[in-house]
Order: sequence, then structure tokens, then C-alpha cells
Amino acid sequence: VEAIAVSDQHPPTSSITSLGEFGLIERISRIVGASAAVVGIGDDAAVIDRPGDSYLLATVDMLVEDVHFRTGRTSPEQLGRRAIEINASDIAAMGGSPGYALVSLALRPQTEVTFVDDLFAGIQAAAAGHGVQVVGGNLTRIDGPVVVDATLLGAVPKEDLVTRRGARVGDVLAVTGTLGDAAAIRRAGDAGLRADDPAIQEWMRKRAVPRARVAEGRALASAHVAGAMIDISDGLSSDLSHLCDASEVGALIDETSLPLSLGTRWAAENMHVAATDLALAGGEDYELLVTISETDLLEARQLGVTLCPIGRVVPRAEGINLRSTDGRRVEIQASGWTHF
Amino acid sequence: VEAIAVSDQHPPTSSITSLGEFGLIERISRIVGASAAVVGIGDDAAVIDRPGDSYLLATVDMLVEDVHFRTGRTSPEQLGRRAIEINASDIAAMGGSPGYALVSLALRPQTEVTFVDDLFAGIQAAAAGHGVQVVGGNLTRIDGPVVVDATLLGAVPKEDLVTRRGARVGDVLAVTGTLGDAAAIRRAGDAGLRADDPAIQEWMRKRAVPRARVAEGRALASAHVAGAMIDISDGLSSDLSHLCDASEVGALIDETSLPLSLGTRWAAENMHVAATDLALAGGEDYELLVTISETDLLEARQLGVTLCPIGRVVPRAEGINLRSTDGRRVEIQASGWTHF
Repeated sequence: VEAIAVSDQHPPTSSITSLGEFGLIERISRIVGASAAVVGIGDDAAVIDRPGDSYLLATVDMLVEDVHFRTGRTSPEQLGRRAIEINASDIAAMGGSPGYALVSLALRPQTEVTFVDDLFAGIQAAAAGHGVQVVGGNLTRIDGPVVVDATLLGAVPKEDLVTRRGARVGDVLAVTGTLGDAAAIRRAGDAGLRADDPAIQEWMRKRAVPRARVAEGRALASAHVAGAMIDISDGLSSDLSHLCDASEVGALIDETSLPLSLGTRWAAENMHVAATDLALAGGEDYELLVTISETDLLEARQLGVTLCPIGRVVPRAEGINLRSTDGRRVEIQASGWTHF
Repeated sequence: VEAIAVSDQHPPTSSITSLGEFGLIERISRIVGASAAVVGIGDDAAVIDRPGDSYLLATVDMLVEDVHFRTGRTSPEQLGRRAIEINASDIAAMGGSPGYALVSLALRPQTEVTFVDDLFAGIQAAAAGHGVQVVGGNLTRIDGPVVVDATLLGAVPKEDLVTRRGARVGDVLAVTGTLGDAAAIRRAGDAGLRADDPAIQEWMRKRAVPRARVAEGRALASAHVAGAMIDISDGLSSDLSHLCDASEVGALIDETSLPLSLGTRWAAENMHVAATDLALAGGEDYELLVTISETDLLEARQLGVTLCPIGRVVPRAEGINLRSTDGRRVEIQASGWTHF
């Protein structure tokens, strides 16, 4: 479908919504052409070759007010932490460690100084937590939504690099933590849902900002047990489909195995939505999705990395499916977050 | 003044306009703390140490619709080229060469596909012109102004690094080309001024997008003749003051020596503004401002780098002044582009 959408016969007056985010990325990739980078556009981070034992990793992620966050619901400090974490997650998905950040910021002139203080306190806290140093950036005025665009540079030993391409049929699909939490919290907030249970309140606080799985990514990569890896930023359904496309494989996900937190179950129940839908389509969880052999799954446990198996890599021809709790086999549509 | 503005006694309800762009940068630098980078926040690009003979350079510059460009006046192709050139200029100012770009883009959903095509055609053209490869980026929706945020990575041989700090009293201040052109074109456009002279029309076309002085920066840096270097993005008055602050020196600029193009003189005359003001405060010229000894100025000429001497580095106590055409000595206020 994308191959048609990006053809030159595309009517010149159509809007980018007709292509969709990934159609647009495909189209841009063709314009900028093949790259001498080891991995260019189309993985979590760009991988740049250089002399020595490690690749340079580079990634950028933009947060836009009223699209990725709402002022009043997300504090400036949370926003700052998130700007670093979501990029650190991209570095983690390549098996790397982040090292340096540049932060580009568009602010309205009437923005209060305390907003900037708190934003950078959050940036600095998250950066320090990952051993990242903020070395540069850019400040500009905008007459519109606040924009925080962080670039993260990192490194990965060349022999440890993990991409989206290494999934092998028969591998286990596993994730580093519960899925759907971010969507559950966002939608509970939209619905004005309030929790009396202190455990649920604590869950909301803890999951308000994701924490990139850098240690887990590094451990799996350095032990050479991860076949393919991707971070779940757009939702399991979308990111699983990216991984399967890149590796030219299919997947069978087991609904009963999807790790769901108590909070996500609570939110789903109270909003009368299926927790599975939150897990599949929710997005912004920033857990890692890994393919790994059965034996290496044990090895990972010995390394101290908790992985929840959620399914299997299957041949491409079998597609991407969910074996539901009632035993039916349902095709998984890539229904996660897309921008256009 | 900045030292007071950024003190902790600052009232918490004040807006960022009370600090100004550079006060805000100063404040942010304190929050993110000292950096292990060779040069952190406060030069044209961040300089990151690494094993081997070269430093990694990283810079980011954001272009916001209705702040840095107007749709209808700047074509998408020009916008794309500018996004690369302004970052390449920052790399050039460190004596480096750019190598890789990441492009982060916020677009309205109704944006036409042709806009993206033309934007990336411009990005790719400018990138290819500097040997830069576009290796990644980010696409997001915005319900507001279009934002183009390009990150450029480059390298400089360690022994060739030039910063803002190396100006010595007695050095010549010189620039790589004419000043005020961008401001003249922008303001002529605002005033609806039209040129009949084909030479002026050609000047407008050629200067619509700056061309980063990468070859000049490299040549000066590798010959070790540049004391300090900065690119003139905010206007000579602002950027000269940044250079003088970093090097702890003063400057005396000779008004008669300021290189002004025929077009800038034409625009100034027709708008009844002083061409000198356009040159001092205009901004967005992206020429390099260099300090260099008298003898090395000759050396630069032999390297094929055209430098126009515009003044002298003087002791800090003498401040930053202009010797005007009528012989008066006028203090230069940093009056260039600031965002807040």
C-alpha cells in the first residue's frame, strides 16, 4: 500500500494525511537517498560508522504542546524528563548508551521563567539518571504551541548493535514491562477518572513519565541474546509491525500473556474499554520489544533482565495475529499512534 | 546585567522576556551544570571529546513559521536549504566539517505532500552540497506554526578547533563576506520594495538562502590562522559582543570598512535606513567573523580565503565601539536579533 501511496503519480494537491506518517517517512527516505550510515532513516536511532570499536548513535524526538502533552496536566518538570527518556529509549533499542543531549526549545514570549527552570530541572534529572550531559541546544520564540525537541547522541560497541532486522522464526517475542499504562493514564485523565486506591494513585505518579530501559537494552545487547529490538513508542501493534516488516517475519501474540498492570486493568474496567486494546494500541510505554531464543530467555533472566514473553516470531506469510483469550486468531492491525 | 537577571531573587512570576534570550541561556547553563564536553552551551556548536584525532561537533537550529520565515515569501525548497545551511555555518565557525543531519519536523495535517517533497529537496540539495547525509529525524503533527529543527553532526581535527575564546588584542577583525544582505532583503520584502535592476534582482535571488562558509572555516582552521571565530547569525553587533565576551576583549570597528553589497546599499537608500545599521543589527548573513593577526591575513589570502578586515581587537576596558565615517567613536550596542 505504501508503495502505491508514495508513487510519483500521487496528485500534487493531496495533503500529508493521505500518506500517513509512515508513508511520508518512506517518501522522505527516497528523497534523501541511500546513506553511508550503517542504519539510516527507519530504525529507532541512526547508526553512524566511525573509526574505533563503537558506532555513534543519534536520535531526535519532538514533543508538541496539545499533541504530546497538555500544559496543566503535564508539569514542566515531567515534560523535561519525558523529552530525555523518549530519546534514551531509542538509544536503548539499539543496544546503546546515551551520552550527550542537545535541547531545542520554542517558547511563547509570555512563558514564565519558572517554566524554563522546571523544564530544565526535569531534563537535567533525567539526563543525570542516564549519565547524559546536556551540551547544547537552541532557544526560539513561537506564537503557538510550546515545542521541546531533544537530540540524543550515544554509542554502542560495534559487535553489540541490535536493529529491527534480526528477528528469526521460532524466536520468542518478549517485552521489558507492562503495556498500556501510558494510554490508561492518559485516557483516565481525559475521562476525569479518579482513583481512591493509594496503589493506583502511586502507579499513576510512577508511570506519568516513562523510564527508558537503557540498562536492559545494554545487558541484552552485550550478551548478544537479542535478535531484533524496538522500543514501544507508538503502541505494540504499530511497533511490532515495524519490527516484523524490517525482519520480514510474522508474529503470533498470545493475549493471555500480555503483561497488564493493576492500574491499567482498573482504568480499562472503569472506562469500559478492553485492557488488551490499551496494551496493543496505547503507545508511549517505552518498553523494549525483543526477539530472543528460548534458551537465551533463561540467559536474560540470569543477567537480571526481566522479560515477559508475549508470543512467537512466525513466518512472514502467517501475518501478525493475536491468539485471543477465547482461542480465536485475530489479525492485529497497526492501530497505534500516528500523527497524520 | 545578566548576572543580576539570572539570580535566584528573580520574581517567580516574571516572563522570559524579562531575561532575554541570552539571560535565559545563561540560566539554563547553570541548571544543566558543567559539562565534560570540551565546549558546552555557549559556542556555535558543542564540542565533544572522543578517542582519536577529531572532536565530534553537534549543533541544532530551529526554524519557526512566522518567526524565521513566512510561508509565501520563503519557498519550501529555500526553507529546507536554510535549515541545513544555518547549522553548517555553526560547524564552520568551529573550523569543522559537517557530516550527518537529523531533521525534526512539525507539520499541520492539512500540509500538502508537495510541501514536504520540496522541503526535503532543499534539505537534500544543501546537504549534498556540504557532503552531509540525512540519517534520521522525526515527524510530528502541530496545530500551529510549521517547525523545522535540524541537528547537524560534524567533526574537526583536535588541533584545528577554533572557538570564540581565542581573540588577542591587536588582532584584525575580519569577515568572510558582505553584511546586512539578509536584513536588507527581508525588510525590502516587508516594505514591498521591487527592483528593476537585473543585478539587484539577481542579488535577491542569490542571497535568499545563505551559504555556509564551510570551506573558508576549514581552510582558516587547518592553517591555524584564526584566533577566534563565530558565525554572524544574530547580526554583527550581537555576535561580535559574544566573541568579545568569550575572549574577554574589546573591539573597534571601522565603519568605512564594513563590506556592503550593491543590493544592501540600494535597499537602504530606498527605505531611508542606514546601510551600516543593516550590517550591524541585521542578522542571518551567516558570514564568519574571525580574529587574525596582520601577517596571517596575508596567509589567508594565499589560501584563497577572501577576508574583509573590519576593525581591531582592543583591550576589554575599551569596550566595543564603532569609528564612524565622520570620525566619531560610538559604542556598539548588541542590537541584533533576539527572541525574547
